[in-house]
Amino acid sequence: MTIYNFSAGPAILPQEVLQKAQASLLNYEDSGMSIMELSHRSSLFLDVINQAEQLLRDLMKIPENYRVLFMQGGASLQFSMIPLNFAQHKKALYVHTGAWAKKAIQAAQMVPNVEVEVIATGEATNFTAIPTIPEEAFDQEAAYIHITTNETIGGVAFQTIPDTKTIPLIADMSSNILSNDYQVEDFAMIYAGAQKNIGPAGLTVVIIREDFLNDTPIFSPMLDYAVQAKNESMYNTPPTFAIYMAGLVFEWLKEQGGVPAILKKNQEKANVLYDALEASNLFSSPVDPASRSLTNIPFVTGDDAIDKLFVKEATAAGFENLKGHRSVGGMRASLYNAFPLEGVQALVEFMHTFEQKQGEK
Amino acid sequence: MTIYNFSAGPAILPQEVLQKAQASLLNYEDSGMSIMELSHRSSLFLDVINQAEQLLRDLMKIPENYRVLFMQGGASLQFSMIPLNFAQHKKALYVHTGAWAKKAIQAAQMVPNVEVEVIATGEATNFTAIPTIPEEAFDQEAAYIHITTNETIGGVAFQTIPDTKTIPLIADMSSNILSNDYQVEDFAMIYAGAQKNIGPAGLTVVIIREDFLNDTPIFSPMLDYAVQAKNESMYNTPPTFAIYMAGLVFEWLKEQGGVPAILKKNQEKANVLYDALEASNLFSSPVDPASRSLTNIPFVTGDDAIDKLFVKEATAAGFENLKGHRSVGGMRASLYNAFPLEGVQALVEFMHTFEQKQGEK
Repeated sequence: MTIYNFSAGPAILPQEVLQKAQASLLNYEDSGMSIMELSHRSSLFLDVINQAEQLLRDLMKIPENYRVLFMQGGASLQFSMIPLNFAQHKKALYVHTGAWAKKAIQAAQMVPNVEVEVIATGEATNFTAIPTIPEEAFDQEAAYIHITTNETIGGVAFQTIPDTKTIPLIADMSSNILSNDYQVEDFAMIYAGAQKNIGPAGLTVVIIREDFLNDTPIFSPMLDYAVQAKNESMYNTPPTFAIYMAGLVFEWLKEQGGVPAILKKNQEKANVLYDALEASNLFSSPVDPASRSLTNIPFVTGDDAIDKLFVKEATAAGFENLKGHRSVGGMRASLYNAFPLEGVQALVEFMHTFEQKQGEK
Repeated sequence: MTIYNFSAGPAILPQEVLQKAQASLLNYEDSGMSIMELSHRSSLFLDVINQAEQLLRDLMKIPENYRVLFMQGGASLQFSMIPLNFAQHKKALYVHTGAWAKKAIQAAQMVPNVEVEVIATGEATNFTAIPTIPEEAFDQEAAYIHITTNETIGGVAFQTIPDTKTIPLIADMSSNILSNDYQVEDFAMIYAGAQKNIGPAGLTVVIIREDFLNDTPIFSPMLDYAVQAKNESMYNTPPTFAIYMAGLVFEWLKEQGGVPAILKKNQEKANVLYDALEASNLFSSPVDPASRSLTNIPFVTGDDAIDKLFVKEATAAGFENLKGHRSVGGMRASLYNAFPLEGVQALVEFMHTFEQKQGEK
């Protein structure tokens, strides 16, 4: 049975990447050692981290005045680090687009000496649409504006990036980095947990404009972006294997034609599912068409029992991890870069058959 | 050519573990998915993390009133978290045994509202011996005493754990956890970066007594031991692959006979090298015999040029990563659990031949 893994993260990785990793797991580049056994200061590993960075730079067209950092702790640690580094005794502006934006906001509110202001919220639409940010909300004195480019749980995504003028824009891009063609120069900082589009869990990628790095030291070197940048992600031992895997994924993505080509494929994949949802009398998307994510697509029948039955039958048929997040219920298909078109086509067919069977009841 | 990897970390892993990981890298337990692709909330992964914890509990005889946490950020993040969680507006006592203790002390000094006191230091011996802690230094009002059980760079290790009476004892055990038979109940908290004796870099293991967990919330959930414990290491996505690898290493260690058996092997391995150093007229150990580490063994010739030549020739002969840390020079052999006895025997033979050649000059 073919397994299609719709997991929201840790998520599907390209087969070619896993095969490459497997082939060299015991003997990396004829060194007689596993990639996991290499000293992070060895020239072999320095090549790995430098190549991973260069590939990411190429893929995202990262300008020279931005630094790329490989960190740990996931987006959740970034939620605390950002206000700690950039908004001490300042105002920090947040756009509330759903569950992950909420986590970022709550974390910022817990950091001492930060005035957190939510300048737009999707609450009125139950977070099924990206809210518009009112012009007057752009307080040019603010330390930054924080957005979540894609809500992994709610399935909404920014289609265009708001122009925040001189206010530095920070984005949690965990669930659609390298899936969409956002322009790095629109942001002062981008961060992303690796476990969706980049590699295994345990790696966080940060892209930060040099002039935005903190001037004031933070009480912990590990939580200090300037220290991390100065030490080129090697203040302490970085997650070497995860960085190696990220490099392989970047290489694979380049072979696929890079971001423009994968974006086209992602649109094609998402359209197959969204079109099926539009055509269905049983399944529907709860998300405003103008805000729909390409990578995380929730859908519902409106009947919990039928949702459950569908997930059960789908799982038995090899469609894994379709169950919606416990906070919203229903189903969710995560279609990251490595997810194949055939998998969406197979799912849509399965949904169609399921719907027909339901109609006959 | 056989390669022997003396790296201080990331370090050698058991071949059997790497082979197991390799065999199932694309299809874990017949799931059709890689272990890296599993949702951390899936029953398959929950089995992995629970088994890893249980194996560690068995190996270290961890009492029931201790929690095991799988975290990120390495020992370096713990250096900041410990005073942040446990010593706010209190005194924290540190034993200075070398480079890593120094890092812990400096990090604690950077945390606001903590009074850091160094109660013993190896400075007088240039950190070649574990200092004795004077009885009067045990200030029963202190939040904790912090020790580094093994100095990875200096090569000194605590042979017996000081009795700190009612003062909670915290240990950085990064470089000799599971190599020595320290008793968990002697500590309020033990922490260790995985990349020496446990698994790949990017995982930090914390063992903490329940009643020692912080009562006061910390400004960042990711930096809050109580939050991490309450969420069973799943406040956010944990480093799933690294935890899986740690589980395989624990399993391997159990098959080897557990800690008592590996300790015996480690003593045998270390003795081969220490005996050779004692017998040599060229090489010597800078470390006090009463403080010598089983896992990290520095040695020198006293002549930088000869050290360099030795490292060069040894590397060419397949003895990798013998170069001493840049802060101390000379050579260092790290003999973690996975390092084979044959490798030490081969090194000693190579040293002997090198010494003879030097004598003929």
